[in-house]
Formats: sequence, structure tokens, C-alpha cells
Amino acid sequence: MATPSASSSVIKRQAVEVHPVDDIDRLMGVCRRIGEGLPIEEILSEILTEARRLTNAEGGTVFAVESHRLRFVCCQNDARPDVVYKAAPGEGHCPIRGALGSNSLPLDSTSLSGYAATTLQTLRIDDVYDLPVGAPYRYNSAVDKSIGYRCVSMIVTPLLDARGEVVGVLQLLNKRDAAGNITTFTAREQRIVEGVACIASTSVREAQIREQQQRSHLDTILRLATAAEYRDGETGDHLRRVGLYCETIARACGRPRDWARMLLLASPMHDIGKLGVADAVLLKPGKFTPEERAAMERHTTIGASILAEPKDDLMRMAERIARTHHERWDGKGYPAGLAGDDIPLEGRIVAVADVFDALTSKRVYKAAFPRDDAFKAIEDGAGAHFDPDVAKGFLGARSEIESIYEAFSPDAPG
Amino acid sequence: MATPSASSSVIKRQAVEVHPVDDIDRLMGVCRRIGEGLPIEEILSEILTEARRLTNAEGGTVFAVESHRLRFVCCQNDARPDVVYKAAPGEGHCPIRGALGSNSLPLDSTSLSGYAATTLQTLRIDDVYDLPVGAPYRYNSAVDKSIGYRCVSMIVTPLLDARGEVVGVLQLLNKRDAAGNITTFTAREQRIVEGVACIASTSVREAQIREQQQRSHLDTILRLATAAEYRDGETGDHLRRVGLYCETIARACGRPRDWARMLLLASPMHDIGKLGVADAVLLKPGKFTPEERAAMERHTTIGASILAEPKDDLMRMAERIARTHHERWDGKGYPAGLAGDDIPLEGRIVAVADVFDALTSKRVYKAAFPRDDAFKAIEDGAGAHFDPDVAKGFLGARSEIESIYEAFSPDAPG
Repeated sequence: MATPSASSSVIKRQAVEVHPVDDIDRLMGVCRRIGEGLPIEEILSEILTEARRLTNAEGGTVFAVESHRLRFVCCQNDARPDVVYKAAPGEGHCPIRGALGSNSLPLDSTSLSGYAATTLQTLRIDDVYDLPVGAPYRYNSAVDKSIGYRCVSMIVTPLLDARGEVVGVLQLLNKRDAAGNITTFTAREQRIVEGVACIASTSVREAQIREQQQRSHLDTILRLATAAEYRDGETGDHLRRVGLYCETIARACGRPRDWARMLLLASPMHDIGKLGVADAVLLKPGKFTPEERAAMERHTTIGASILAEPKDDLMRMAERIARTHHERWDGKGYPAGLAGDDIPLEGRIVAVADVFDALTSKRVYKAAFPRDDAFKAIEDGAGAHFDPDVAKGFLGARSEIESIYEAFSPDAPG
Repeated sequence: MATPSASSSVIKRQAVEVHPVDDIDRLMGVCRRIGEGLPIEEILSEILTEARRLTNAEGGTVFAVESHRLRFVCCQNDARPDVVYKAAPGEGHCPIRGALGSNSLPLDSTSLSGYAATTLQTLRIDDVYDLPVGAPYRYNSAVDKSIGYRCVSMIVTPLLDARGEVVGVLQLLNKRDAAGNITTFTAREQRIVEGVACIASTSVREAQIREQQQRSHLDTILRLATAAEYRDGETGDHLRRVGLYCETIARACGRPRDWARMLLLASPMHDIGKLGVADAVLLKPGKFTPEERAAMERHTTIGASILAEPKDDLMRMAERIARTHHERWDGKGYPAGLAGDDIPLEGRIVAVADVFDALTSKRVYKAAFPRDDAFKAIEDGAGAHFDPDVAKGFLGARSEIESIYEAFSPDAPG
């Protein structure tokens, strides 16, 4: 777009402006550094870091288009590290929300970011407090005022997907020169930022496709695993809660996000082996004979056989869970009587989640335990039925566990 | 795109080297044009087209690293359009295979592509028939000889993923100048090609993650849907075959690849409603009473209720299939007695695939039909039991159907 004459017109920057190899190198560097398979929030945070590094911008913000609004995904500011913010996936809290009264902006041309998003144009502004007369957008100085900051120069560029639709906005502010003074962004820097935005857009779209696939995969697992307990009268909410409890406990126990996410998908298959238990046993009202109890307990090994010869990590985890979720920390569980660390961690986590959910659920033959009593039961079982560390992680995440319970229990008391 | 100075310079190349804005523009254009969500083969084919366009290269080839070899994915050559080749996903045929005796190369430094892949370096060669003395690689002129072509100039660059591991090789050949003469690639063109390769690598990695996710999703569906037929004694091979038959029929009926792929995933859930049929009916040897038959036929509506309120297209399709795969073209099927186009296409396709698989499978109460008889039965049922167009598509794809049968039937005769 800009020609050589354009780049020489800024002041006398020709010497600095002409490094074609550097520019491609920089974009290639960005391209290489953005990890694949990351959640959208992580990608956008990395992109912001890269774009700031390439332009020496003191701060910046990334917005994602969601439900026809621009949601803050992350902001960074070297001068005010307390303002640094990165949304966790699915999380909505934002520290600058207070100043704006919301963690999102309307998708219209009244704000700088909204203008870039709706017109698909990049804005390069020397001083946001001195905007062109008659411009449809205005700078909202509420954030500056609330944190005692002065935003001056800015680049605001839309993130577009392959169909040319806007998926987000990248905003950079206050470029610092070599001496550390705030200065204006150049046309060349605008170009580089647009290049970075272009690379980012592809990654964001891929991440959206991936996340859609994961949701679809989880939906399949929940439906089919729930169907497997069809004769049992189990509801989909039970397995959804167990999955979410397990993910929460795994994070509370310090496991990596990917592992916790895999557990969310694998854990709902823990009782799949009930498919192999005859109606006469599964549906029997009243007490089991020893033979019937043994037949019922075989749902663990039948489940493991259904999930045997796993082709990937997900099935490998699901097979271990099916086999070991009725083992006990003290060795008194079934089917193998494993104890302590011999029980895979995923089995120990599902044991806690499954028992807690059974206690807090109404059954034909019993009322739901009061929630406090159920937490107490897990606490009491630590070191005997349950791995004490897992129980501790579970109890430490009580508020998240309660949120899940409330969100997915149609007959939750109160 | 080219500036006046660029187009006027073919010999004096220094002037051409300095156009940072153009280079970034070009890379951004590539970035925008590569569609997301595509199979790896499509991405690599697009990348080759883009890289050739940016460098005016007459031809080129892309290899993907697979099982420690370099597999041909696509080659293009404007001078020899008959040589143009694009691998279909999963397909191995390649027209230049004859000349090389294989559709892949060893991953070592004896070939130009192998050298780029193993050293992670770009080769830029003025004449492949005049390589440096002592170079570890040599040019294999067998392809040139077999197709009567003379390869001269070449760029060969590795495609690297985010961890710096090689995923493929991009090879461009015979740059044409404005007058159409073969000339050498410049250092700047090498840089651009490396930039394109960098962008491509990200897309390829994302595609690999996506395809791994899809395989995992299919594996989950096959296991859980097979488990649902646990009491029935059904094997995983039955559902795998039905899924593959359905995908093949859909393609033969002209449905798009994405739809056929979705059918591959959705169709194995067709009998999930058998979970809701009591042991006393499902496992009854001998004839059903009318009441028992009605209970058995309810597996269609039970299945539809298990898959009800679908959140995405996959479940929507699976629900329709569960509900309608026992309807007949002539209206004599169940549960609703729908006829003709009132039966969703996916239900009509599964009907053919499911019946063919049942006929060709051994059961406790019957031997497997000879394959010719089973094809004949589908042919005879066209227009009565089956949609005549679907039956025609099925019969037209007979060789693919037989390949699937042979690959996934442990007790296939002969």
C-alpha cells in the first residue's frame, strides 16, 4: 500500500525503514513462536506480546468478537504491570472492567476498536486526545483516569478470518523510542502489525474450529456414556458434573490444563461397563447376593475391555479410569485391590468426584445428602477411601465445585 | 502488486531487493488465501500454488514427512499440465511414481529434498544438472527423462512446525522471467518462499492436530456405539464398515467431502437405541411376538431421543439416522412409514450400508451371504426398500466397498 516515497516522507527515517529481510524475518519469527494447539486466549496474548515487541509499544489490548460485542481478552502495559490481564478460557473477570462498567464494548464505530472492527480499517493515531474533528469514534479516557495513565499514540487493527470477517481487534499504544520517550507509530510499523494480525487471524480461526471439535467430542461422549446408563435411569447431568468436578480437581492438584481437559472427556466413560451387566442384576431392587455383587463389580473390568487397546491418550486414560475408579487408597476397593500410588491418579480423582456426586444426588431409594455432609464425607474418607492429596485438592476447590453443582443440578435444593 | 521499479528490473536486481511493503503484502495475501479447516493435502496444494505465483516458478512439488519418508503430496507444472497431481486424503497414487519406482523418497541427504529436510536448510540452485562438486545430494533426473522435461533452477525449503521439526518440503523449479525464459531464483525470492513455508507449516500443524482430533472422535464413537450393542454381540468391525460404506456411498452420490466425513462419524450411532430394549426382547432366541417386535422397533425412536436436542450438525445428522434408518423408499418401513424423499438422505444411505453389512456378516443364526448375492440384493431392492439413486451410487462404488469389506472383516471368506 505505502510506496517507497511514502516511507521516506515521515521525517528522515529512510535508513531505518529499509530492511526487507528483517521484516519477513520478524513475521516468520512471530509465525514460529505462536504455538499450535493453544486456546484462543493464549494465541491472542502471544500475538499481543509479539506485536508490542516488534513496535516497541508500551502497552496494548486484544479484543475478541463475541455475541456482537468486543470482549477484552488481554491487556498488557509495561508502565503499569498491575493492569496486565489475561482472560482464562471461559472466564469473564477483567481489572479494567470497573472503569468501563463492563468487560466488553459495543461493536460499533463509536470507539476506536469498534471503528476498526466495523470498517475493517487500521487506525494509526498520533495522539488519541487529539482526534480528527468529525471522526465518528472517540477515545474513552475512563481507563486512563482510573489508573492514572496517559495514552498517546495508538495503532488499532482488525483481526480478520479467511472469509474476511472480523474475529477481533489488536490495539497497541504508546510507542517508546530508543530514549524511552513516547513517540508516534510509523507506516512501516503499521504494516508489520497488520502482518502480525493476519497471522494471528489464521491461528484464531483454527483454534475456533478446534474448540468446536472438542465441544462436539465431549457432547458425543456425554450422550453415548449417558445412553450406556439408560437402563440405570442415570441422567446426562450426572456425567457432566463428574467430568467438570474431575477437571477442577485435576487443576487444584496442579495437573497441566491439557491433562485436566483430557480428564473432562475421559471421566464420563467410567461406568461404560454397566452395558455388560444383565438387566436382572442392574435393575434388581434391594440387596445383591454375593454372586450378583460380583457381577455388578465386573462393570469395571468390562469397561476396561470395551476401552482396551487404546489408540490415543484419551482412550488410554479412559481405560485406566474404568478399571480403577472403584479402587480405594487403603487397598480395600475393587477389582484389583490396588492401594495408594498404584492406583492411577485419574482413577483416584474420579473416585472422589463420583462419590461426591452420588452423595449429593437424589436416587429412587435415597434423598440427596446436604452439601455440607457430602464435603464432610470426602474429608472423612481422605487417607482411607480417598487419596489425601486428591481430597485436599477437592476441598480446596469447594467454591468451584459448588458452582458446577448449582449449574448442572436441575433439582438442586435451594 | 509489483512497483514500477520492480517490474523494470530484471537484470539490475539490487533495486528489486528493497520493497518491504510489497513482501509483507505478499505474505499477508498468502496468509489470507489459505483456507482454514482444510485437509493437509489441500493446504499444501494451495501453498505450492501461492509460492509458484510469487516467484513465477513454472513447477513445483510438495512432500510431507510420513513414517520417516518424504511422500509426494502434490506437484504442479505449467509446462506439463499432464503431470499435475494432487493426492486425495489417504490416497497414495502418483503419476511420477513410475519414474521413481515409489511415491516417496527416503528421508536422507542424498536427494535435494531429503537434504533440505534433514539439514533444515534451504537450497537455492541455479542448475540442478551442475551441482557443486562434493555435495552430498544429487539430482535424480529420472522424472525429467520419463516426461521429457529439463529442470534447471530450483528452491528447496523445509516446512517446520513450531517445535522446529520438519513436517514437509516445498520445492519450486524453473523460474520464468518476463520474457518466459528460464532464469535463476533470487535471494529475495528465497526469503519470500521461506516466509510462505513458515506460514504453511503452522497451517499443516493445525491440520494435523485437527485430523488427530477427528480420528480420536471417531474412535470414541465406534467404541461407545459398539459397547451399546455389547449385549447383542456386535463387533466394532461392523460399525466401522458401516461408517466407511456410508462415506463411500455419500461421495458416490456426489455429496461434498465434509458431509461424507460427518456421515462417517454419525452413522455408527444408528442402533444406539438398542440400549433401551430389555434383555428379554433383545436376547430372545427365535421369533418375536407382535409386542416384542414393536419393542424391538422402538430402538429407532429411543435412539432419536438419546440423540435429541442436538447441539451441532453431527448430532443432528445422527439423530435423523437413528430415527429413519429403518424407513423404506416405498413407505413400508418403520417407525413413521416415511417414503421417498421424505426420508432424509442420510437415513436412506445408512439403510443400504446396514443391510449390505448384515447380509455379508456371519450371525449365530445364519451364514454370511456370498458377496455377489449381497450386491444383487441391494440391486433388487432399489426402488422398493432402497432409494434407487443411493443404490446406484453404492453399486457404482463396488470396488471401494469391496476394499472396505476386505480390510475390516476378520472372517471374510478368501
